[in-house]
Amino acid sequence: MVIQQQLQIETRGRNTYNITPQVEQAIRQADITTGICQLFIHHTSASLILCENADPTVRSDLEGFMARLVPDGDRHFDHTLEGPDDMAAHIRSILTKMDLSFPISRGHPALGTWQGIYLWEHRTHPHRRQVTLTLYGE
Amino acid sequence: MVIQQQLQIETRGRNTYNITPQVEQAIRQADITTGICQLFIHHTSASLILCENADPTVRSDLEGFMARLVPDGDRHFDHTLEGPDDMAAHIRSILTKMDLSFPISRGHPALGTWQGIYLWEHRTHPHRRQVTLTLYGE
Amino acid sequence: MVIQQQLQIETRGRNTYNITPQVEQAIRQADITTGICQLFIHHTSASLILCENADPTVRSDLEGFMARLVPDGDRHFDHTLEGPDDMAAHIRSILTKMDLSFPISRGHPALGTWQGIYLWEHRTHPHRRQVTLTLYGE
Repeated sequence: MVIQQQLQIETRGRNTYNITPQVEQAIRQADITTGICQLFIHHTSASLILCENADPTVRSDLEGFMARLVPDGDRHFDHTLEGPDDMAAHIRSILTKMDLSFPISRGHPALGTWQGIYLWEHRTHPHRRQVTLTLYGE
Repeated sequence: MVIQQQLQIETRGRNTYNITPQVEQAIRQADITTGICQLFIHHTSASLILCENADPTVRSDLEGFMARLVPDGDRHFDHTLEGPDDMAAHIRSILTKMDLSFPISRGHPALGTWQGIYLWEHRTHPHRRQVTLTLYGE
Repeated sequence: MVIQQQLQIETRGRNTYNITPQVEQAIRQADITTGICQLFIHHTSASLILCENADPTVRSDLEGFMARLVPDGDRHFDHTLEGPDDMAAHIRSILTKMDLSFPISRGHPALGTWQGIYLWEHRTHPHRRQVTLTLYGE
């Protein structure tokens, strides 16, 4: 069985957004006992990650690390037309990936206790982001 | 339904190679309406990424960033037998991954408008690279 | 067909652990000719990678690179309660990912000659790590 569903996520600019509840709801509504949930974001300047879900400083430290690793407006960048955060957003997305898969077990998302699913918006301005969930199994 | 297909990609050394047309063709030929396309590269010194597909400076900036992040011939490296680009190529591949999945919707690859699929050759010399496509769904 | 199996891996602290034999055994026991093996680690401070499997200096160079990229006890970190390796472990895991998929072909894991599957423990102390294998195909 294969079930596909679209999520629209309105971001308020660069930040991590917990989309675990929407994903859990989609899995609850599907009739799959054992299988995989595959998430895909249809953009090149936002990504999907699994991150510790309890202490918000994990995500602020992560954002700080990435901002130092891939500085906005790096003087080496030639792709600057859309602003100083644009090329950085592409690199950040490639380093943290646009696809993400995890198991479905006994009808539930088999995430670890501390794993939350986050959409990471890498652009500084708000964007509407499209995510496809594909659930398959039996 | 599961369909598997091999792609052979001849690279001309370190660079990003757009393999979207070959992947789209495989999906067109398969009779899958809803599902997943999984790509896998059978090497440890080349990777598969989704990258902005319109402005070539995105990919040259990406290459420049990675070359600064993981310098060829880094004096810290002990694995140097195959040349200064060898260990760097392994690290670059692990950071950007050898597997990649995205949805198939209505019989088409459901990529975002600006998403292209690229094989990233990390070795400086030309190589023949093997990629497996696995398409599954219904 | 979908088959799911749990692996428990006891780590002895920060290092890479070859789990290829356990994964190969699970695929051998399953009756899947063509499909996908999906691996998932249920933690936010350990990851799953494909790495060169012949020369151990590849993995020590990789560990050295990551230790320089994401320094333990970085003074920028606010999430420090569990020790200097904790926040670094979260970042290292996100950069190298908790999910990993590769094809099954002719009943065998279709890995490249030099590709081994490694659990990368990012915490300095030993941990018991849970990995789910999901095999699907026909």
